[in-house]
Amino acid sequence: MTGGDTWRAHVLTLFPEMFPGPLALSLAGRALERGIWSCETTDLRDFGLGRHRAVDDTPFGGGAGMVMRADVVDAALETIPADDGRPVLYPTPRGRRLGQDDIRRYRDAGGVVVLCGRFEGVDERVLDARGIEEVCLGDFVLSGGEIAAIALLDACVRLLPGVMGSDESGIEESFSDGLLEYPHYTRPAVWQGREVPDILLSGNHAAIAAWRREQSEAATRARRPDLWAAYDARHAASSAQGAASAKH
Amino acid sequence: MTGGDTWRAHVLTLFPEMFPGPLALSLAGRALERGIWSCETTDLRDFGLGRHRAVDDTPFGGGAGMVMRADVVDAALETIPADDGRPVLYPTPRGRRLGQDDIRRYRDAGGVVVLCGRFEGVDERVLDARGIEEVCLGDFVLSGGEIAAIALLDACVRLLPGVMGSDESGIEESFSDGLLEYPHYTRPAVWQGREVPDILLSGNHAAIAAWRREQSEAATRARRPDLWAAYDARHAASSAQGAASAKH
Repeated sequence: MTGGDTWRAHVLTLFPEMFPGPLALSLAGRALERGIWSCETTDLRDFGLGRHRAVDDTPFGGGAGMVMRADVVDAALETIPADDGRPVLYPTPRGRRLGQDDIRRYRDAGGVVVLCGRFEGVDERVLDARGIEEVCLGDFVLSGGEIAAIALLDACVRLLPGVMGSDESGIEESFSDGLLEYPHYTRPAVWQGREVPDILLSGNHAAIAAWRREQSEAATRARRPDLWAAYDARHAASSAQGAASAKH
Repeated sequence: MTGGDTWRAHVLTLFPEMFPGPLALSLAGRALERGIWSCETTDLRDFGLGRHRAVDDTPFGGGAGMVMRADVVDAALETIPADDGRPVLYPTPRGRRLGQDDIRRYRDAGGVVVLCGRFEGVDERVLDARGIEEVCLGDFVLSGGEIAAIALLDACVRLLPGVMGSDESGIEESFSDGLLEYPHYTRPAVWQGREVPDILLSGNHAAIAAWRREQSEAATRARRPDLWAAYDARHAASSAQGAASAKH
């Protein structure tokens, strides 16, 4: 089944054999089998030039490594229908950093096209000409865009309807409200002398919710001052607004 | 060949068949074949309890999903020699965000042990008891730790001696000096009416280096105000220090 509602991923890469890779298993794998999403690849090598199907050349201005040619990448992109509104993404350390809000946007776009760079990257002009979204997973450098693409697709696919069970809806999780998630505990209640926090055994749902909120806030403050500052600013703004409204 | 200098990755997972996965190909794959690194897995299911080899249970305090048991995870970790100084990492959205400096630290540690969570995550007590490093790739949620582990290993492996060619040494790249990398251009010099910036054809190496620096700074300012603020603060501090020294 590959119906009209299938979320469609299309990956342009020099290593099509990397896909679906780990996405053929577990949550994403079952969703792939059920046709909830699809994963097509285009081998950039097929658009290479000359006898050696060259896809890259040395950088203008000198320097290390090789750069993927604009004309080669463009020819490959040309074979993908452009009128379906799917964003074209290029994972690169130079990109805007991805957040969970971007992932939701891609999920809602019906699919994504991902261009995987290798070597030093892709000629800037094809990125400009095609309005490609340069995106960055995190502040570290990978050997190519493929593993970033796999991560990106996994993040999108798990949010598609029917992929997660109704009891794991992804609502109460890290980043969904700008805070990290609270810590989790399960049986046994005592393990190696370490007890589960009493409150979790109390049956008092309101107190448990309040404790979890505190834990989320404390973890965010300690581990992610950047998220905490943004959360705090929003909180202060809405308190101020509440106070202003109350006056009227 | 798996000599004493082999960088050793060990992954604890419910999906050992995901490894080495995409890391069997390209740069990381060639390095794996050459014994520059190794990739062992431990199947957490082997440590599951009872007839169904259960690894998880419902969360204390209620809520969605399942939590991986401390005793199960601990038993699996117990089988890995702990005296070799390799950090034990747990990819989770709750973690400290990884940077390229962490990647270099893991590279220098001789290897890493990566615990891959599934479901809602791992019981907090085993993370505390074993001093496991909770690390986060980026501000998005994956279906499990496996793909994060693959990204993390790829980032480490490419920095191992002999993996990248000498002309792609990873010195001039994003994050290495707190700035994003400059844009790249290669042949053809004119593509679809778009010309390569003149300066790159000038042969003036000092002018090219200055232009690239400006481009790096402009991209960082526009795309990553967080990195720019940190860079700017360091720059201001070193200028002030320079001025102070000049007075003496």
